[in-house]
Amino acid sequence: MRQDRTSPTGYALLGLLSFERELSGYELRQWAGNSLHFFYAAPAMSQVYAELERLEAAGLTGSREVPQGARQVRVHRITAKGRRALGAWLRRPVDPPQLKHHLLLRVFLGHLLEPEDLRRAVEEHLRWCEAELASLRALLDDLGDDPVWAHARLVAQWGVEHHSAERSSARRLVRALDGSPGGPRSAGTTVRA
Amino acid sequence: MRQDRTSPTGYALLGLLSFERELSGYELRQWAGNSLHFFYAAPAMSQVYAELERLEAAGLTGSREVPQGARQVRVHRITAKGRRALGAWLRRPVDPPQLKHHLLLRVFLGHLLEPEDLRRAVEEHLRWCEAELASLRALLDDLGDDPVWAHARLVAQWGVEHHSAERSSARRLVRALDGSPGGPRSAGTTVRA
Repeated sequence: MRQDRTSPTGYALLGLLSFERELSGYELRQWAGNSLHFFYAAPAMSQVYAELERLEAAGLTGSREVPQGARQVRVHRITAKGRRALGAWLRRPVDPPQLKHHLLLRVFLGHLLEPEDLRRAVEEHLRWCEAELASLRALLDDLGDDPVWAHARLVAQWGVEHHSAERSSARRLVRALDGSPGGPRSAGTTVRA
Repeated sequence: MRQDRTSPTGYALLGLLSFERELSGYELRQWAGNSLHFFYAAPAMSQVYAELERLEAAGLTGSREVPQGARQVRVHRITAKGRRALGAWLRRPVDPPQLKHHLLLRVFLGHLLEPEDLRRAVEEHLRWCEAELASLRALLDDLGDDPVWAHARLVAQWGVEHHSAERSSARRLVRALDGSPGGPRSAGTTVRA
């Protein structure tokens, strides 16, 4: 059997095409940005085009040019082969989440920072959490109760829970760092699962 | 000014060296695996060695060979220049967390999976959450209440909160998928932040 050269991001794009609409690279990027970005780092536009070329070369997608206003736009669709490949990939064992939490790396190295710098970074993270929560609530409104989006709703709800938990943790971090010139206060005594 | 070619992972290793001990590549990998992996994807051994070469070439670390049992082992230390570079990097604006949550991508594409397959994947994730929580509790025990590890404790506590929230969300997903042959049940009605 030939080795599978499709990346997880390639499968994510194939997955977006599995909802049966033909989509341009731009539309795919927009959709990935709106619906995937909060749990799956959205690919750059250049990466979307590169992945689409690879998918088409592997016969997993097809494309055609359609008029859009005054110009021609290439739209992509999933093929039967693409649907089979996606189905087989979805049934493979799932890797654990991969996280790069840049703020926590700063906190970990907090002995090299002024408490005030660290506090400011945590507060910036709090604002980011609020913005993510607002866009997730807008997404849930958009999804409505259409059965087609049942799974997308589950994921968006996970996102709300995830970012609410991030917000609570960030608030606790602010309190721990607050007013402690020499470092975090009373760490190690409050949380047990 | 010369462009900064040190990767975030390079700075993470430099950060581990900032605790003033000389460490071998193997020890750095072990430490990254134990203390960083739950919030910052741990680099492969080969990536650790490649980063250490780059750091030394840039003058940010130095190294020497020391006897360890019957053989010589190369140990690395941070230089004054490395400490300055790390401090400057830590004060830069912090990017939001990057997440690739492979399970949620499966859930998002749940219309292509049997509910039973999806449920099994979520249950596997639950087991992973439990294992992470157990290793975080062991880490917190190891850290004790030594002031040197005050920030490491804050991050480990964040990890406990994060994985507890993941576990709650996964349990809710199992309930939503449970006994719903056609797809998730009552999605979109339960969570608001």
